Amino acid sequence: MTYCVAMNLTDGLVFVSDSRTNAGVDHIATFRKLYVFGTPGERLIVLQTAGNLASSQSVVNLLRQRLHTDHPNLLSVQTLFEAARVVGDTIREITHHDGTQAAGTGIDLSCSFLVGGQIKGESTALFNVYPQGNFISSTPDTPYFQIGESKYGKPILDRALRHDSDLEQALRCALISFDSTIRSNLSVGMPLDLLVYRKDSLLVPAGYRVQEGDPYFAGVREQWCNGLRDLLSQLPGTPDAYMT
Amino acid sequence: MTYCVAMNLTDGLVFVSDSRTNAGVDHIATFRKLYVFGTPGERLIVLQTAGNLASSQSVVNLLRQRLHTDHPNLLSVQTLFEAARVVGDTIREITHHDGTQAAGTGIDLSCSFLVGGQIKGESTALFNVYPQGNFISSTPDTPYFQIGESKYGKPILDRALRHDSDLEQALRCALISFDSTIRSNLSVGMPLDLLVYRKDSLLVPAGYRVQEGDPYFAGVREQWCNGLRDLLSQLPGTPDAYMT
Repeated sequence: MTYCVAMNLTDGLVFVSDSRTNAGVDHIATFRKLYVFGTPGERLIVLQTAGNLASSQSVVNLLRQRLHTDHPNLLSVQTLFEAARVVGDTIREITHHDGTQAAGTGIDLSCSFLVGGQIKGESTALFNVYPQGNFISSTPDTPYFQIGESKYGKPILDRALRHDSDLEQALRCALISFDSTIRSNLSVGMPLDLLVYRKDSLLVPAGYRVQEGDPYFAGVREQWCNGLRDLLSQLPGTPDAYMT
Repeated sequence: MTYCVAMNLTDGLVFVSDSRTNAGVDHIATFRKLYVFGTPGERLIVLQTAGNLASSQSVVNLLRQRLHTDHPNLLSVQTLFEAARVVGDTIREITHHDGTQAAGTGIDLSCSFLVGGQIKGESTALFNVYPQGNFISSTPDTPYFQIGESKYGKPILDRALRHDSDLEQALRCALISFDSTIRSNLSVGMPLDLLVYRKDSLLVPAGYRVQEGDPYFAGVREQWCNGLRDLLSQLPGTPDAYMT
């Protein structure tokens, strides 16, 4: 499985991905699922992937191979909307190319992408590209998307994340969402790849890899876990009617 | 959908069920999913159900109809293990009876049950009965089971519930687990049915229905939500390396 979150907020974008892939619990490996494209001062485009690893890697390879060619590509498109279209079209191309052989084998070749970033002259944008290649865009009402194993980590995002949350706060909220998911689902695992983009900076950040045992993340996890237990113990006593 | 939690702890048992059923988002209804059987001073058996409503209701009706007959039933079995077997066998009977007509229609008739309680001379016990009629038992390592939409509400149980948690604390933990689920999934909804059983009391509690707008639950939800936001804002500042 996989878990990726992306947020499009007033101050910029936050992306966090896990790096575990598995084909059964006895076949676990580490693969990066966060990819950065861009030209400093001009554009940043971040992709995150979930689903069939062969498919998502092929999509990314094809997207890379076509950079600096005449084919519409992530460095030539004029808008993020067009970037999401290029990603969607490439998903369709790979699904069509590989799907014939897999038909009837019961193997699910589908993959999905989050596509976010900023191109000079535009605001930031974030898209959730479905396995069928179509996509939806984030809005101030729904400023984040998840792909992969989304349920365990959704409650904290629904409670605490708002479009105007600052980037640091949003990143911590994402880290807590990952902590909840990693605790409950073995198929989501460390290290985490994260990238924070400040709106209008037009920088191409390298991002950061949070390794197992990273002292900041370990501290956050511990403080959060202890804090939750304290919160629970501070809740008012249960009415008698509940207990009889 | 449905969400039910049951806990088998040092001091007794805690059961909480939602009451929403749906056949599509435009066909929502309220049905109780927590059923109590027992004889004061002698036994308490609590059932919780998830899955196809026609199937789970048929199972419960058949179990009720057979009380006070020669058929092995929930008031005649000598152990909770036998009670779980009776429930499992009844699930198989209903699945077999109704399954033939449904075959090939794509309708999923399966249902699952949690079965917990105490029979005089035994300790408390809790079983998770699968749609196939077989079942597993809770242990001190894994003192709770969930059926239905379990993922949103699992992280808080994994973090805060232990076999030796006291019953009030465990009930509050379950209520928070329901709050997380209700916020994230429309198909899980109020009112909640809950029942707390104190070990060796051999009482047959009626349980309590937490209605929409219940002041205690509303207060807990608000305090929890505000507390989480405070916790998040108290986390240490993010290292520079994370933000660049």
